[in-house]
Amino acid sequence: MKENRNLKVHTLLDIENLKVHGRTTGCLSPLTVFWTGSGIELNAKGSELWIEVEVDYDMYEPWISVVINSSPVSRQMLTAGRYWICVFRGMNENEVKNVCIVRDVQAMNGDPASFMQIHAVKFDGEFLPIEEKKYKIEFIGDSITSGEGVIGAKQEDDWISMWFSAIDNYSTIVAKALNADYRVISESGWGVLTSWDNNPHFNIPQYYEKVCGILTGEKNETLGAFKANDFDSWQPDVVVVNLGTNDRGAFNSPEWIDEVTGETYKQRLNEDGTFNEEDLKTFEKAVYDFLVKLRKFNKSANIVWVNGMLGGEMLPAIYRAVDIYVKNTGEKKVSVFQLPNTNEETVGSRKHPGKLSHEKAAIELIGYLKEIL
Amino acid sequence: MKENRNLKVHTLLDIENLKVHGRTTGCLSPLTVFWTGSGIELNAKGSELWIEVEVDYDMYEPWISVVINSSPVSRQMLTAGRYWICVFRGMNENEVKNVCIVRDVQAMNGDPASFMQIHAVKFDGEFLPIEEKKYKIEFIGDSITSGEGVIGAKQEDDWISMWFSAIDNYSTIVAKALNADYRVISESGWGVLTSWDNNPHFNIPQYYEKVCGILTGEKNETLGAFKANDFDSWQPDVVVVNLGTNDRGAFNSPEWIDEVTGETYKQRLNEDGTFNEEDLKTFEKAVYDFLVKLRKFNKSANIVWVNGMLGGEMLPAIYRAVDIYVKNTGEKKVSVFQLPNTNEETVGSRKHPGKLSHEKAAIELIGYLKEIL
Amino acid sequence: MKENRNLKVHTLLDIENLKVHGRTTGCLSPLTVFWTGSGIELNAKGSELWIEVEVDYDMYEPWISVVINSSPVSRQMLTAGRYWICVFRGMNENEVKNVCIVRDVQAMNGDPASFMQIHAVKFDGEFLPIEEKKYKIEFIGDSITSGEGVIGAKQEDDWISMWFSAIDNYSTIVAKALNADYRVISESGWGVLTSWDNNPHFNIPQYYEKVCGILTGEKNETLGAFKANDFDSWQPDVVVVNLGTNDRGAFNSPEWIDEVTGETYKQRLNEDGTFNEEDLKTFEKAVYDFLVKLRKFNKSANIVWVNGMLGGEMLPAIYRAVDIYVKNTGEKKVSVFQLPNTNEETVGSRKHPGKLSHEKAAIELIGYLKEIL
Amino acid sequence: MKENRNLKVHTLLDIENLKVHGRTTGCLSPLTVFWTGSGIELNAKGSELWIEVEVDYDMYEPWISVVINSSPVSRQMLTAGRYWICVFRGMNENEVKNVCIVRDVQAMNGDPASFMQIHAVKFDGEFLPIEEKKYKIEFIGDSITSGEGVIGAKQEDDWISMWFSAIDNYSTIVAKALNADYRVISESGWGVLTSWDNNPHFNIPQYYEKVCGILTGEKNETLGAFKANDFDSWQPDVVVVNLGTNDRGAFNSPEWIDEVTGETYKQRLNEDGTFNEEDLKTFEKAVYDFLVKLRKFNKSANIVWVNGMLGGEMLPAIYRAVDIYVKNTGEKKVSVFQLPNTNEETVGSRKHPGKLSHEKAAIELIGYLKEIL
Repeated sequence: MKENRNLKVHTLLDIENLKVHGRTTGCLSPLTVFWTGSGIELNAKGSELWIEVEVDYDMYEPWISVVINSSPVSRQMLTAGRYWICVFRGMNENEVKNVCIVRDVQAMNGDPASFMQIHAVKFDGEFLPIEEKKYKIEFIGDSITSGEGVIGAKQEDDWISMWFSAIDNYSTIVAKALNADYRVISESGWGVLTSWDNNPHFNIPQYYEKVCGILTGEKNETLGAFKANDFDSWQPDVVVVNLGTNDRGAFNSPEWIDEVTGETYKQRLNEDGTFNEEDLKTFEKAVYDFLVKLRKFNKSANIVWVNGMLGGEMLPAIYRAVDIYVKNTGEKKVSVFQLPNTNEETVGSRKHPGKLSHEKAAIELIGYLKEIL
Repeated sequence: MKENRNLKVHTLLDIENLKVHGRTTGCLSPLTVFWTGSGIELNAKGSELWIEVEVDYDMYEPWISVVINSSPVSRQMLTAGRYWICVFRGMNENEVKNVCIVRDVQAMNGDPASFMQIHAVKFDGEFLPIEEKKYKIEFIGDSITSGEGVIGAKQEDDWISMWFSAIDNYSTIVAKALNADYRVISESGWGVLTSWDNNPHFNIPQYYEKVCGILTGEKNETLGAFKANDFDSWQPDVVVVNLGTNDRGAFNSPEWIDEVTGETYKQRLNEDGTFNEEDLKTFEKAVYDFLVKLRKFNKSANIVWVNGMLGGEMLPAIYRAVDIYVKNTGEKKVSVFQLPNTNEETVGSRKHPGKLSHEKAAIELIGYLKEIL
Repeated sequence: MKENRNLKVHTLLDIENLKVHGRTTGCLSPLTVFWTGSGIELNAKGSELWIEVEVDYDMYEPWISVVINSSPVSRQMLTAGRYWICVFRGMNENEVKNVCIVRDVQAMNGDPASFMQIHAVKFDGEFLPIEEKKYKIEFIGDSITSGEGVIGAKQEDDWISMWFSAIDNYSTIVAKALNADYRVISESGWGVLTSWDNNPHFNIPQYYEKVCGILTGEKNETLGAFKANDFDSWQPDVVVVNLGTNDRGAFNSPEWIDEVTGETYKQRLNEDGTFNEEDLKTFEKAVYDFLVKLRKFNKSANIVWVNGMLGGEMLPAIYRAVDIYVKNTGEKKVSVFQLPNTNEETVGSRKHPGKLSHEKAAIELIGYLKEIL
Repeated sequence: MKENRNLKVHTLLDIENLKVHGRTTGCLSPLTVFWTGSGIELNAKGSELWIEVEVDYDMYEPWISVVINSSPVSRQMLTAGRYWICVFRGMNENEVKNVCIVRDVQAMNGDPASFMQIHAVKFDGEFLPIEEKKYKIEFIGDSITSGEGVIGAKQEDDWISMWFSAIDNYSTIVAKALNADYRVISESGWGVLTSWDNNPHFNIPQYYEKVCGILTGEKNETLGAFKANDFDSWQPDVVVVNLGTNDRGAFNSPEWIDEVTGETYKQRLNEDGTFNEEDLKTFEKAVYDFLVKLRKFNKSANIVWVNGMLGGEMLPAIYRAVDIYVKNTGEKKVSVFQLPNTNEETVGSRKHPGKLSHEKAAIELIGYLKEIL
């Protein structure tokens, strides 16, 4: 290999024109990349670029995609260790390349050891300023928004990082179409009240104000995951909430037992298969309360609660909760939007929305957001 | 990281149920992966799989894609060195995964130092037999068949490995649809007579009988690239030849000067912009001669000469050459098939056919091959 | 012209295996075809078939489409008069053709003189029994369900019969996909409470129990349009209600003045552009009341209120009304489903949903109905 | 019906701004509409338009489509007789409507009694000038170019007028995309040498110079069908010849016996299923001779011989014939272009190309013609 002697190492702190995507602690030495869809963006005028990552995990390794000039060019697993990855080489040194390094897997609540960091870049050119996008959008969701099932054959059933994608994901497609920066807050299996298996601790709202509160373990604490998020630094124009699908599942799952307290939790069905009225109310209250919290931290954002990509059975309850919220607050910028359901043609692996389902959902959501923006 | 203590290293020689794709020297310790679309296939019943690669180059690095159960899951640059790459981890140890490691970049004539090898795999399970495919197809071509331009934004213009793809390539799509194993012999810029810039040494036919004769340099000689290919071990049902596009280009390019002999080469245009009759005849003779050679090594294959994805101006000459060949030999299994042209909607990077163009070409070619098989 | 001497005239009364589609008075001598999507179906084993129609109007003429073996073959304007129309000729007399004569234009409230009748058929073969469809679906709607804008260039703006279609219409596509007979009750510009211009008399609910109560004039009275519909004879499995889009429009239209009483009607907007709370309540009450009426006449049908093909701004109010209805009655078979919005690509003439929009809406609705059936 | 008292009858002769499409005798009182795709075009500023047609036939009735502002709005059978047909009514009298009345069925060789004429129009406005199109294209072909099979269910097998379409036809789509006027010369079952059943009288070339020489009978003689066509009045920029598919069929059909002379005709297959060399030469000579004739009458047109929508087995022979023609004449503006084959997804009725196949062929042909124009 001919060595490129012009490469210089830059810590992220050194790079004036660095754009960081996704919620972080503000620390750049190194940058911890918590959420799916997060990472860094550079306008790189030079011929060869590397990034230095540091990664560890017990079970669920992170993956990244590299996007050059808005076109995905690679996607790879990051195994444990600290090492350099080549992003591109041999390119025209006079051309500016817009480069995004995107975390392609959700933050992993189930693996306290899992983290991904970017320490530095190695480059033989200069980094130019990055144009501001027109909008900012925050997507909050579950496995759907985490892109679980976008990758892999339909038959795949393992719960592993490999099947996740931030790229062929409705969030990314919508953001690109609207010329928006975006952030994703999402966790597979979680809901607005409980997880799919009735665990009342696995809901997004109670961790929303932290940088990445859904994580666990000392390592993540050290990394700052549980610090308060700095909402002032990034106020979205739109918050898309795609929660409720796992809350729906909870009605069909066995009770969850708190092994510490012995308490049990269960969203109940009536004997005729309909939702228990009381439990449904609890769900609606959770939706309501999350709207209150979202508004607290996102003062002027349009909040759009979406649902439907894996069935829309919670939509009536979501509509009720939003209705009461709107009535009580007099706010206008909160609404509900149904996304198209996934079918045999559009399904991906793990019975989750595939690439075609994400594209279809994105088209409808783009249309809706264009109207309200 | 929790170490997986069940992983065992297997050299390729150890693996009974290994399937090697693409022309090789027969050597498995290590396996040199010469051509795009080449690599190894395993039916892996186990939870975690790694491969050990060795790679070097001066300019053009290789890339690989990983395809699991026929679905692409990753694609990454291979930088220089000898190291392990994780293919999958954390999967159900009782399920059999069909895994292909596919070289995603063509053999690189222009970089004598470039090579890619697979030394070994690390696995915690067993490898099961791989079902025979119904057909064998060999694709011979240029940048189109090398998948140049499938990856990357339309504006990209660098000539680098990154823009190549063996996956979203008409060859791979056709082979999959017909349940066929396949091999690819292809080199960007090359023709059946000369390259796009009139270099008479850059044509596929004169290297066809070697394992990977288009390569250069001592290293590749050591690796066996210039040894005679063992045609008996793999006799295709169909040979698809997609050459002629660069021969067309030669008519519009300046003469090529042999720096050793001082001789010049040039396919000429008449003053009215039409092809010089004599030079066209030379091209037709090259087509004819290649058919003779192809038949020599592929005794019973259907030979289909295709053209058109970047314009079909050589088709009349190709038809004439095939015509004479059929007349002289009395053979029936040689034919010409026009592929759909690339347009603004289907173009990829570097003004080459994009993913949509490859898909479109594949659909037509699948229809044609189904008829003749 | 060679006369076909085997043709025999049959009044509709004579035909044992006649299937009449759409609400009628029961009278077959002649059959008045009131609603769009209505008409007759025959399994005709013979070579040549004609129908005798009688038609009149002052402004809005009817059109028909002929559908043979589920494939549309012709579409034509019916001008005033009583005359014969050839449906097919020269066909194999031994083959059975399934033939539908479909009214392609809505019942025309605005033209008391407009009617369409079928008196008889002329045929040289025999009519065979027609298989029962699996389901029955009733579609209730406005211009969208009337297929206004499906035909014609985007620039068209005349309000005329020519732009209507029952064929490339979501109702027809859904019914075909679900193997269902279907009926359509629809009127352009009408709503569930008022028309787009605040006319409180132009709503579907108040005429729902009549055969075709939205019509006017003595002629239509004579034809039986205002007689009570015989609901017992045709109980749908699903009632799809696509109303609300014109009620939305009323908020943006000037008040409507009753020229008889001098009373004015107006759905009001607040100064900030939001809906007046009181008027929205009136709309919700209209939805509620229509549900009560629908249930009265359709004892066991699934009732699905759909909206969204021209914007879904009434969906929150529709959800509220359905919610209260479900709560008050304890019924489960009433729900709301959002249809995809029309965009620049899918729009037809008169700024209404085009063929592509109807196809897209149908795909989503088919998916939803398959779930609940 | 309210009579429109402003309607005035205009014979075609009276209309200054009339555009006649398709080959005719020049006679306008009445205009005989011979070929599919033929008819009249008007820029009609007024509210209501009728045309007076006269039609007769023994077996095969004509059909017409009405196209308003480039959008098809109706399609109907024309039964025998002389009568008025309403094209539109109730439209804005101040808007100009571009209106085409298009014959939707080929000239019928098999029915000497079949003809279609337009006598006059009835209108309440004025006819404005019609803009010249950029190009003129002539399409010459067989059932494919006649649009046989575009209409009707896949199961249909009757040979009747109903299944033909000039509208969803590659000829019309190509002409529209290139902003071209076009003419169609086509007859089902016919070839360049013989028909599908070896009839040597059923080939297009021998009647090419007549207005509509493929017709038969005294009536058509009276109408001028056999008069010399006035080529000077309409010189195409492109002639697309889509012949050869039936010549292919002849090789598989029994011999044809001339009942007058007792002579037999047969294109023979060799025992191994390949084409008899001598008979193939005869076919190639027919192609060659037709090129000579086409050039005689179309001095400066690009001549493109296309083939492939129902298999491309004659392409090698067509290439050979064109090759010799080009060599002998030194002409450059003659070429061959392969159209995509029809498959299960794109097939229509009577095993012929359906709408999707025509659209696909059109896209490829548009690309090719754009290059050469």
